[in-house]
Parts: sequence; C-alpha cells; structure tokens
Amino acid sequence: MRTFFISLFIITGILSAKAQSADSLYLMPRPQSVKVNDGRFLFGTQFTIGVNGPVSDKLTAAVNRFYLQLGKLTGIYFPQEYITPADNNADAQLSVRFSKTVLADIGVDESYTLEVSSSKILLTATTDIGAMRGLETLYQLVMPSGTGYYCPAVNISDSPRFKWRGLMIDVARHFISFEVLKQNIDAMAIVKMNVLHLHLSDDEGFRVESKTYPKLQQFGSNGLYYTQEQIKELVAYAHDRGIIIVPEFDLPGHSTSILAAYPFLASYPADYKPAKRFKLDTIKNLNLMTVMKLINTMPTPTIDPSKESTYTFFGSFFKEMSGLFPDAYLHIGADENNGAAWKQNPDIAAFMKTKGFKNTDELQAYFVQRLHNIAQKYNKRIIGWEEAYNAALPKDVIVQKWKPAAAADTLVKNIIAHNNQVVVSAGYYLDMYFPAYIHYLNDPVPANVNPADADKGILGAEAAMWSELVNDGNEEIRVWPRTAAIGERLWSAANVKDADDMYRRLWMLDFELNDRAINENNNYMKILARWVNDEDLTPVRTLAGLYTQVKGYKRLMGAMLTTGATHPNLSSPMVNIADAVHTDSEPRWYFRKLVAAYLDKHDAADLEQIKSQLQRWQNNKVRFNALALNSPYLQQISDLSVHLSDAAAIGLQALNGEGSKDDQLKQLQLTGTASHEVQLTIIPEIEALVTGKLKPEPAAYPMF
Amino acid sequence: MRTFFISLFIITGILSAKAQSADSLYLMPRPQSVKVNDGRFLFGTQFTIGVNGPVSDKLTAAVNRFYLQLGKLTGIYFPQEYITPADNNADAQLSVRFSKTVLADIGVDESYTLEVSSSKILLTATTDIGAMRGLETLYQLVMPSGTGYYCPAVNISDSPRFKWRGLMIDVARHFISFEVLKQNIDAMAIVKMNVLHLHLSDDEGFRVESKTYPKLQQFGSNGLYYTQEQIKELVAYAHDRGIIIVPEFDLPGHSTSILAAYPFLASYPADYKPAKRFKLDTIKNLNLMTVMKLINTMPTPTIDPSKESTYTFFGSFFKEMSGLFPDAYLHIGADENNGAAWKQNPDIAAFMKTKGFKNTDELQAYFVQRLHNIAQKYNKRIIGWEEAYNAALPKDVIVQKWKPAAAADTLVKNIIAHNNQVVVSAGYYLDMYFPAYIHYLNDPVPANVNPADADKGILGAEAAMWSELVNDGNEEIRVWPRTAAIGERLWSAANVKDADDMYRRLWMLDFELNDRAINENNNYMKILARWVNDEDLTPVRTLAGLYTQVKGYKRLMGAMLTTGATHPNLSSPMVNIADAVHTDSEPRWYFRKLVAAYLDKHDAADLEQIKSQLQRWQNNKVRFNALALNSPYLQQISDLSVHLSDAAAIGLQALNGEGSKDDQLKQLQLTGTASHEVQLTIIPEIEALVTGKLKPEPAAYPMF
Repeated sequence: MRTFFISLFIITGILSAKAQSADSLYLMPRPQSVKVNDGRFLFGTQFTIGVNGPVSDKLTAAVNRFYLQLGKLTGIYFPQEYITPADNNADAQLSVRFSKTVLADIGVDESYTLEVSSSKILLTATTDIGAMRGLETLYQLVMPSGTGYYCPAVNISDSPRFKWRGLMIDVARHFISFEVLKQNIDAMAIVKMNVLHLHLSDDEGFRVESKTYPKLQQFGSNGLYYTQEQIKELVAYAHDRGIIIVPEFDLPGHSTSILAAYPFLASYPADYKPAKRFKLDTIKNLNLMTVMKLINTMPTPTIDPSKESTYTFFGSFFKEMSGLFPDAYLHIGADENNGAAWKQNPDIAAFMKTKGFKNTDELQAYFVQRLHNIAQKYNKRIIGWEEAYNAALPKDVIVQKWKPAAAADTLVKNIIAHNNQVVVSAGYYLDMYFPAYIHYLNDPVPANVNPADADKGILGAEAAMWSELVNDGNEEIRVWPRTAAIGERLWSAANVKDADDMYRRLWMLDFELNDRAINENNNYMKILARWVNDEDLTPVRTLAGLYTQVKGYKRLMGAMLTTGATHPNLSSPMVNIADAVHTDSEPRWYFRKLVAAYLDKHDAADLEQIKSQLQRWQNNKVRFNALALNSPYLQQISDLSVHLSDAAAIGLQALNGEGSKDDQLKQLQLTGTASHEVQLTIIPEIEALVTGKLKPEPAAYPMF
Repeated sequence: MRTFFISLFIITGILSAKAQSADSLYLMPRPQSVKVNDGRFLFGTQFTIGVNGPVSDKLTAAVNRFYLQLGKLTGIYFPQEYITPADNNADAQLSVRFSKTVLADIGVDESYTLEVSSSKILLTATTDIGAMRGLETLYQLVMPSGTGYYCPAVNISDSPRFKWRGLMIDVARHFISFEVLKQNIDAMAIVKMNVLHLHLSDDEGFRVESKTYPKLQQFGSNGLYYTQEQIKELVAYAHDRGIIIVPEFDLPGHSTSILAAYPFLASYPADYKPAKRFKLDTIKNLNLMTVMKLINTMPTPTIDPSKESTYTFFGSFFKEMSGLFPDAYLHIGADENNGAAWKQNPDIAAFMKTKGFKNTDELQAYFVQRLHNIAQKYNKRIIGWEEAYNAALPKDVIVQKWKPAAAADTLVKNIIAHNNQVVVSAGYYLDMYFPAYIHYLNDPVPANVNPADADKGILGAEAAMWSELVNDGNEEIRVWPRTAAIGERLWSAANVKDADDMYRRLWMLDFELNDRAINENNNYMKILARWVNDEDLTPVRTLAGLYTQVKGYKRLMGAMLTTGATHPNLSSPMVNIADAVHTDSEPRWYFRKLVAAYLDKHDAADLEQIKSQLQRWQNNKVRFNALALNSPYLQQISDLSVHLSDAAAIGLQALNGEGSKDDQLKQLQLTGTASHEVQLTIIPEIEALVTGKLKPEPAAYPMF
C-alpha cells in the first residue's frame, strides 16, 4: 500500500487520473497493440462468463480463479455459482473463445485478442494458454471509479516477443519452500512468464527426493527438500498456469551435497558435508583479487568424469528425474569448474591421456557429451551454463549465457553461428541489487547479433535469483516486483523501454502481485514488526522505505570474506535491514517526480509538499528513538535514522536559502555513506534541491 | 501491528512494561504453574541446542523450526548450521530432554517442565510431544530489552486440563485451501491444541478425493477438494505438530453433495446438485419463526437408511477413508435430520414397520448403529453431533454437544451417566461473532456435572467455524486470535479466567500467530487495500478497526432469508466490512482501558490522550472522503465513517462540558445503529464519557 504522502500525489494529480488513453492503462507486460476506444464496460450483478472451445480443465480452473478474484476486487456477488464447461453461452457478457487445448511448452501459441465494448468483452485465442494470457490482461484492465468497476473499451492484440521467459530460483543454498514456489508461479502467470528453472542442487544442499538414491536428500540436505509428491503437484500447478519447470542438477562442480551422499563420485576423497565450496577459514580476510585467483585455481568438490560408474549413476538418476519432471528440458549446470580437482588426481590425468584430451576443458566437454547422451535417451534436451559451450557441443543443447558481457563479447554470436540456441541471464541477476530499470533496459539480444540470428538462436531469457543471501522469508522481496520488469522485456516489443512509464505501472502491478500471488509486502512487514516487537511500524517503515542495498557483489563478498555476526549458514535469519528492504524504493520514486516537477516549474504547491515531506523525514527520528528504547536492532541501526533526518534537514535548509551549498553537499555525502549494507536513496534528489539540477539516473552500476 | 496511538499507551505505561512477575509474562495458554525468579537468560552468538532422548524426527524438525524462528526474532546468527539427532550435548545452553517418542493421539503425555536460569535453559518432558509443547512456551518467554533478547529466569511445570482441544473447520460450504489448513495447524500448535476436525462434506460440497467413489468429488464439488496426496501430507503435517485430524462426513442429512454424485442413496428422487439445503426461493421473505418451523418439518436431502446398498456403499467408503485418515476417530455427523424425508417415502415407512421402529428417531438410531459397526471394523471410534445420542448408543461413541444449553440442560449429564464421552462445542461457535471473552468464560463442564463425572466423561471441547459466511480469504480473520482464548480454556486451569488479562496476552499472541503461522492480518489488509485500490490504508484501517459484526445469527439469517447483493453462493467474494473486520477490536480495548483509567483517577494526561484520540477519529472522515471519490465501496459505507466522526464529536462535547447529556445519549444511540452488518464498538466508552460511568461488558449476547 502507498503511504498517505504518496496518495496525496495521486489525488493532487502529479500522476494523472486514469484517463482513457493507452498510456494511462496499467498493463504489464504491455501488449503488442492496444487501441483505446470511447466507452466503458461496467461490471454488475448481471456479469456472466461463457467459454467456447474444447474442454480444457486448466482454462476452466483459470476462468474460475479470474471469476473469484474479480468478485473480490469489485465486491460484486455475481450470479454464476462457478463456471463449468457447460457454461458455453457465447452471448455471455464475457465470452472466451479458443479452438485448441495445448500442454505448456516452449513455443506454444500464446497469442490472444481482447475486444471490450460497453456491452461485451470478447477474448479470443487459438489455444487455452493464449486465453489464459488474455485473462491476465483483462484483469489488469479493471478499474474503479466513483460509481463502480469498469473496463475501458479497447482492442488489444497480443503475443510474446520471446518464447522462453524464465525465472531461475536457487533453492539449494537456502531452501525455498513449496508454498513460496507456488506463490512465485502465481506471480509469473500474472506477468505471462512461462519457465520456472529450479536450481535444485549445489554445494549447500540437494533439494529433491530421490527414491533411486535416497542418500541424496538424506545426507545432501539439512532435512529440507521437496518430496516427489510435491514435485508432481508443483509441475501440475505450473502447467495449469501455462508454465513449465526446468530442473537443474549442477554438475560436475557445485556438487558437494551430492558427494556428501555418494562420495564414490568425487574427484578426490574428503569428508564431504553440504556446505559452501570455499570454507570461511580458507578465504576470510583475503582481498578480492586473491580470492578470485583462488576460485580459479583451488581444487573444489567435483564429480569424477573418468569413471564409468559415474555415468551408471547419472543414467539411473536422470531416468528417475526425467519421469518426475515431464517437461522437455534438463539443466546440467556445468559452470565454474576450474579443473583443479581433476588435474590433481593421477587416475583422471591418465584417463585424459588415454582419451587424448589436451586440457580439462576437453574433459568437461566429454562429460557434457556423456550426460547429453543419457538425457537424450529420456527425450530431454539439456541446458548448461555458458561454460558448457564447446566446439563439439551437440546442436540440441541450449546454452545459458550468464557472465556480464562487454559490447565486444562474441560468445552469443558464436553459439548461434554454431547452431545452438541461447537463453540469456547476463544482465538479469537479481542478487546484484540493481534497480528494476537496469534489468529492464538490458535487451537479451546483444548489439552484435543481427535480427535473423536472434530469431533463430535466442530463445529468450531468465531472471536469476541466487540465494546466498536469500531465504524463504525474503525471497519474494528480492524477486518481486523487479522480475516483472524483466518479464515485460521478454514479452513486449523491443521498443517498449520507457523506464519511467515502467515504474508507473510497476507500483500498481506490485499491488496486484501481493493481492493475488505473493507475500512480498507481508514478509517485509513481518521483519519490521519483529524489530519493534509489534509496536507501531510507521517510523521504521518510513526509514526502511527510503533505503536500498549497496549494489553489486559488495554484500555477497562481505558475507563470504568476513567472519562474524552475519556470515550466512543454512539457518541464517536474513532479517537485517539489507535483507528486508525492497531493491527499488517506491517513496523515493514519487519524491523524485515531485522534485523534478518543482525544479521544472517552481510551483508553490509542489514546494509545500516537498517541505512537508522533508519535515516528516527530519522528525521521524523522534518516534524511531522512542521505539529503539526497547529494540536491540533499532539501537544498532540508529545511524540510519540520523542520516535520514540530516539529509532531510539539508534539503530544508536549501529550500529556505540557508547555509552554504558546499557545506550542504559535503554533509550530504556523509548521509549517503553506506552503513549496515544499505544506502539512503534520496541523496540525488536532496542534492538537486541544493544545486537546482537533478542528475539523471546512472545507466549502469559497478559490480563490485 | 499496533497503531501509533496504541503504542503510546504502552510506552506511556497504562500497560506496565514487561516486569519480572508471572502476571506480566505473555504466555498463552497460561501454564499450570509458573514461578519467576531473579535473573535473565540472554541470547547471544554462543547459543546452542542439545537434544537428549530417542531419535524423534518430529521433535528434531520442531527444534529446527524453533531455532530458525528464534534467529528471525532476535536477528542473531547462531553457530549451529542446523540441529540433528547427533546434537545431543546435555551441556548446551538449551538442553531438551525426553524419554519417549509417541504418535499424536488423544491422551498422550503432553506434560513438560521448563527451568530457565541466567546460564541455562532446561526443557524436560516424558514424550517428544510434551517437549514440543514446552518449546512453544519457551518461545513465548523470549523478550526484547534495550540491550538484547532474553528469557526471564523461571520454573514452569505444565500439562493440559483436557485431553481433547479441538478446532472444527467447515471446509464444505466454502472451500478452505490446503495451505490455509496448514496455517491453522501451525496456529493450533502455538496454543497447544491437538485436534483438527474437518467437516468434509455438507450440502454445498464434498471436499476429499475418493478413488472408490470418484463422483463424490467430481459431481459433489465445484472442483475444489483435497487430493488424497494432500490429505496424506496434511495428516503428516499435523502429526509432526502433535495434532490429530478427525474427518467428518455428515450423514444422513446435510448430504446433498453426496446425493448429487450417487442419487441412489437418496430418500427421495430429485435433481441433486451441490447447494444449500433450503433454496432461497423457498424461504426468502419469510420470518424467522416460519423458517424455523420449515427447518423442522420440510423434507431435505437425506440418505436412505432402509436399503442394504446404503451400507455396502458406506462400507467401502469408510474402508477407503479409514486408510486415508490414520487417526482413531471418524465423525459421522448425524445432526439436524428432521425425519421428514423418511416419513414421505413409503418404502422407508414399510421398513420401519418391519423393524418395529416407532418413529424416525429410532430409525436414525439404527442408522448410527450400522455406521458404528462398519467403522469398528476399521478400528475407528465414531463421533456424532448430539442428535446421535440415544438410549441404545454403543458406549464407545463420542457425542459432540453443540446446541446452546440452558443451566437446566441435563444432556451432558445424561450422556456421561450412560457411559459415553462428550466433546463440547456449545458456547464455542465462532460464527456467532461473539467476542473472545464470551467463549473464554464458557467452561466445557456444565454446572450440573460433578468433577468426577467431568473427568470421566468430558474429553474436552472444540471451537467450531461454520463457513456459510467464510471463505479462504477471511477464515483466519474469523478463527484467530479468538480460538486461542478457547485453547487456553481447554489447556489451563479452570480458575484461570481473568478476561482482561486474557486480552492483554491475546494481542501479543496475535502478533506471534501472524508472524509464525497465519495470514490473518495480511488477509484483512488485502481486503481493505482493494477498497482503496492500493491508496493509503490509514483512514479505512482506523474505521474498520473500530467496527465489529452484529452478533449472533443476524448476519447468517439475513444472508439466508433475503435475496440480493449479498446472498452467498460458492463464489461469494466475502470482502465487505462485515467479512473483513476482526470480531474483537484491539483499538477499542485500549481505548476502554484509557477511559476506565481516566474515570477512575481523572488524570490530566489521560484526558489529553482521550481528546487527542477523539479528535483523530472525528477528523478521519476527511481523508476517508478523499479516498471515497475513487472507491465504489467506500461510497457505500460512508455512513459508517459519519457515525465514527459523530460519536467522537459527542465524546469531545462531553469532555468539554458542552451540550446536553440527554441529547448526547440520544445521538449516540444513532451512531451505534447497526449498518452494513457491523456496529461501532466504542459506544459504551463514549457513553461513559457522557455519564461518568463505564458499564461492564455484557455477560452474554442474544443469539438472534
């Protein structure tokens, strides 16, 4: 929900009321074609739904979910008890028409058209999945007015730009519960995404029940994993929403948890336990460059690719998992294997010699080829991270690009030239704490790839949520709503890239996501409520709402390289301010609009609003301090409260023409200093009040 | 969370800070014996847990949940990655000791002792379930201070008063999702309840997958039911928390949904469809007495007890369900069968004659006896609502008392004299919208039953949540936190009955419930957020926080007897103010304390706080009206906003010595008029400001 301050904005008109033009609708992702006409369709107690097409259980269920949710939004008691395939009246106020039932898969027809007039809503699609996509758009068209809920009359025609619109969730490093995965699926369905990629194994944990190799979950996890029944339910749940599930088992590196269960698979003997690959003892207090070097040269837990028993094992394992995960894709990882574990094992070295492999890259290529051949037996296409790519790679393997790419990077171009296909995650790493617009403006197609090659070779992209610093309690805060911006990048036309308009719609979408799918805001509030032991949240909400995390890998490196209170383990609470806050600050965005408007027109009403807001921020520390008396955590972060107050005071001074500019800018820099892994977001706007000039948002942020 | 106004109370000391006396702890249910000592156990990074006893997967899981949650509350990164059975160090800071692993069941040993000193926490129990109950108490002992989190030093010894501490949820009339059931189980575990009774079938729906008779879910529901896999998972989830599940299939009446699937079971032929027994067409616009008469005389869908095929059917069905639900109890309903459907069927009349039954009660007794015999084959003890009781009832049948009982009611006494056992739900009906204290002060043991008979015959009690006006989106708002008051009634000693102290602890418990188990507050906020389309919630939160539903069956009768916008069906939105609001108003409770304190001592600071609060309430309508411009629902309920403002104005007048008492009392009555099925709660307190005298809370409320 918005705070009263933000509401004032809307009511007083910085954002225009929802007028009837395509640019003032709140559709996300934006459809390919939208034409707004005169007139409105008004919802009332006569509203009925008819569905025409072959029987589709998943569309029937989707229509009923839509029907229930529309009732909840409008409060109207509609006349149908519920919708069944027998409800096929083409004259119903909402007529849904389609001709084909299809299973969720990459490349199925997801197109639809929506025609809304004052008397009728017609949703037409070729497939039931297309009709489901259209229902999501229709729901976003519903708006309140003083007299009731309505849809503006529109003609919409829509289909996705990319076939593969994914979200990868690392459920290995910290377990993400079954319920939270379902909520993520609901959110994906709202923004028309269609691939949930589960990173099911890594050094810290193996997260799915195997009946063939039960030690995998018994010794490879802290007791937290999905049962096979849950996986079946999850797959069905995703399919019901037009989404496929791609399981990833990360091999040959990132495999400590597997080796903890079956040490005979290892490249060197050790007492394997699910845990980080690099022990804190090894790397703490080293500098970044030394750590990077270690990562490239230190032997780490790795599968032995030289033994036939390895392939016997993965033969049975892939067979079992192929039955459990019915979709056509199987991700085998293949990333970040530095080869060091292989080099130090004489048996593996001898094997390489026999095979004539010149280096460990060729041995990795052999390993990937063997896994490919096993997967093929079970009709799976394999995917690997970009390190899986090599000159001999079978053409049906999909390569997932993840390393940040300079303009000169030709990897994607080369992969396409080699006739493999690509899924892009470079630029979509959610653990970098970059604001949504950074990901939004990152096109999956590199500038050096021509359109025909892109069509042929780039299947789409995936947002990637690595969970070193994320657990069940804050995963949704980190993933949403940012992923919706990536979802729009993948669904909508390439030229839809107005970041400001994206944010306008993103805040409204976030309301929908929280209402219908996720617990992002609830989880955020729960963390804050614990800080204050259920006392009034307002002061901490004001504070936390204006802070975002330090960007790039600073937090992660800090957590890896230092010991102490916040070194994460499998039971990390993740309840500090850097764990809790949203990566984009909504109050800051509205404040920025207000400051921009004021600097543009010097309107007295805007000035008064800015002052009133700054006064509130300046005074927030009084209530904050009262709460801190009984809050160990607020006492720890009281410097953040002081920073906010000081920054607001500087803004007020500047507006009142008091003090010296130079002093103010110097002081402002101090209030913007990172502390507790977060930074105050409103520094550029306060600076603008001092200098009279608002700097544009950075086009990029450093990774470190 | 509390509002700032309430926080002020706590900070300024109307509620004393958490001092170290048993009366200022926040334990719920209150243990049998609590002794507070000097000293505190402080939590820090050295905190470790050791468990001594036989391997118990459920206790290991419970300890890990406790450990994670303690980390979330305190923010401390504890040193153990997670707890395994190998973590058995008896010198750990928290040592958990037990000697026996038991399956959840009625009557297992749930006792425990807790000894907390400044250096050590020792939790001792006979069984793993006892240890789990103790962990819940321990968590409630954890408190913040300015310097950190601690437990006061205590000696606690505890065990339950009643063996059967249940919650019944009607999942038939409106479906309650699997996830919400799990959340309810989590909440029950927190307040040490141990029976989840699921009312799985009724006229409106049949809610569990049958593989023997799949039409039950296919034709007996709107597609919403639990799969057998979900039931298995739910049972395991409940057992892991020391809770059993009692399935109810309501027979021979309340069976429309079963007859929709298998009409050959019916006492008369009809086109059965899952729906209300009494059609709106039949009863709308009738008065209450006429309807009551109809209920007692009109034939309604009822199983035919005269045919052997009926028992063949239920033989196979009970066999299947007995396998699915492993706990020892099976509820067969047996309520509200008026016999009219049987009387009108000549075959049934002939059967009665053959058997020598004088009336339909005897036929019902025969039916119950036959079901009892079937259930016995599968080692199930049957339970029935009180209408199941008859002179020939087998002694192992448990009778569930539900009808509100006058003091002279001897039914429970008679049942015990007959050597049957009783579970009491009379006085615990949550759909009456009675405040928590009403249920709290209702003892399960009637005054006319002596203690020895009570020990022998009264197993315990169950809160009952019928879902005519409840769905998945508001079930938790209706059930919690009120059910915790009932939970305390059943666990704690009979003489623990200070309602005011119960509320003091209930508000804090509600924070814990929402943090650890349920989405009560989140669901409440979601409804309010839709009213205002995600604008600032403060004005509607202020308003809705002070209203509660009209009490008794008024809402339900209104919904049954009238047609129009709010006649519920299977897709009812349940998003109006009467659906949303909590049944106990927390802000009103704090306001009442303040008014009572002021009238007692006439302290100037109290007076200022009351005035400031009344001014805020009086002015709330300004912001409410601004929001209403774009909110169809706020426009509908604007009279409630006016009532609040007017009531507050009367209070201010009275405090300022303005106006006439008589006029004020007359006006006040108007502002207290029920509208939209809710009533303003603060009328008695405003009245007290006028008259100078605060009336005590009513000891009872009328049912109609």
